[in-house]
Amino acid sequence: MKKRSLIFSNSTITFLAIFLVFSLLQNGVKGQANSQTEFAIWDSNGELVKPESYREWIYVGTPVTPNDMNNGKAPFPEFHNAYIDPVSFAAYKATGKFPDGTILVKELVSVGSKAAVSGVGYFQGDFIGLEATVKSADHHADEPGEWAYYSFTTEAGQALKKSSPKFETASCNTCHQVSAADDWVFTQYYPILRAAKAK
Amino acid sequence: MKKRSLIFSNSTITFLAIFLVFSLLQNGVKGQANSQTEFAIWDSNGELVKPESYREWIYVGTPVTPNDMNNGKAPFPEFHNAYIDPVSFAAYKATGKFPDGTILVKELVSVGSKAAVSGVGYFQGDFIGLEATVKSADHHADEPGEWAYYSFTTEAGQALKKSSPKFETASCNTCHQVSAADDWVFTQYYPILRAAKAK
Repeated sequence: MKKRSLIFSNSTITFLAIFLVFSLLQNGVKGQANSQTEFAIWDSNGELVKPESYREWIYVGTPVTPNDMNNGKAPFPEFHNAYIDPVSFAAYKATGKFPDGTILVKELVSVGSKAAVSGVGYFQGDFIGLEATVKSADHHADEPGEWAYYSFTTEAGQALKKSSPKFETASCNTCHQVSAADDWVFTQYYPILRAAKAK
Repeated sequence: MKKRSLIFSNSTITFLAIFLVFSLLQNGVKGQANSQTEFAIWDSNGELVKPESYREWIYVGTPVTPNDMNNGKAPFPEFHNAYIDPVSFAAYKATGKFPDGTILVKELVSVGSKAAVSGVGYFQGDFIGLEATVKSADHHADEPGEWAYYSFTTEAGQALKKSSPKFETASCNTCHQVSAADDWVFTQYYPILRAAKAK
């Protein structure tokens, strides 16, 4: 092996040092900080702040329960694009467990079309709502599984709410507790989570 | 503004320099390198190598064209989870154009269930195929729009192909050229792309 020494001038060193600090800061912002503080944020009223950038998290699956298959009144109209924060996804891949601070988001999307050149079916239209669930020992100590549920959805055509109080346990948690396959999460409908889970 | 000087010992400087090199390398691997070489790779036979880690790219939408809505023979059964590589997504957000090297992946997922506690509909089952399209001046100079299409799908239950030749122009490109809303991409069914596109 040939040895090479690193030679820098003083100004180069200063530049490198400054660059390093920025690089470290940037890495922190990107996703190596604690997921609970980074992705799930509560305001001073104890409401969950609407997540940002969740469309750049890890996608886990899309059920579609169209209104026209549910007598015009689907409980969750219509497409539900579900995402998990990337730090918790990495932990789930490594450990098979959803870590404290896990946040999953469900974005509701209308059915925009039912026919295309690719066939007959359901095609995504516009964004119509946003919901989230977080596992948190600090914030949900009294909730079964430490999971609670939030909704930022408003009336049709209005902007999403900026924050949301948690739902009563009976509104969401109870059904997730009984029917979801893995720790209150409906992994039976999320093939990406099933494939990623550590064995 | 208070001025502060950065003071380091020689060993600290060496450590910082080494750390910086690793940090730069890591950032390169993460997604700041050229998308064409990073995400779309052709083998020595000119076949596109099956992408890896695409489930951690940017999700753009899921049409569902179920077999039971297409006389049992949907052209693309059944869910199609579509993703774009993150570097090209960032460029699309910034410029409104798909850059050279853009790769989109379409993962086919079976319908696993048609009823759940959330209602009647279509729920994702198992992975059944994988397709991709790439825009490349180098590799697709003769294709309309410089887009070509690939499939890694095999017979049911078999592993995906490790590489794929491109389809004939008439097999995929022609339909995309005529019917896709934005540069051969069906953005009319991908709300995430529509929302992200630079105005």
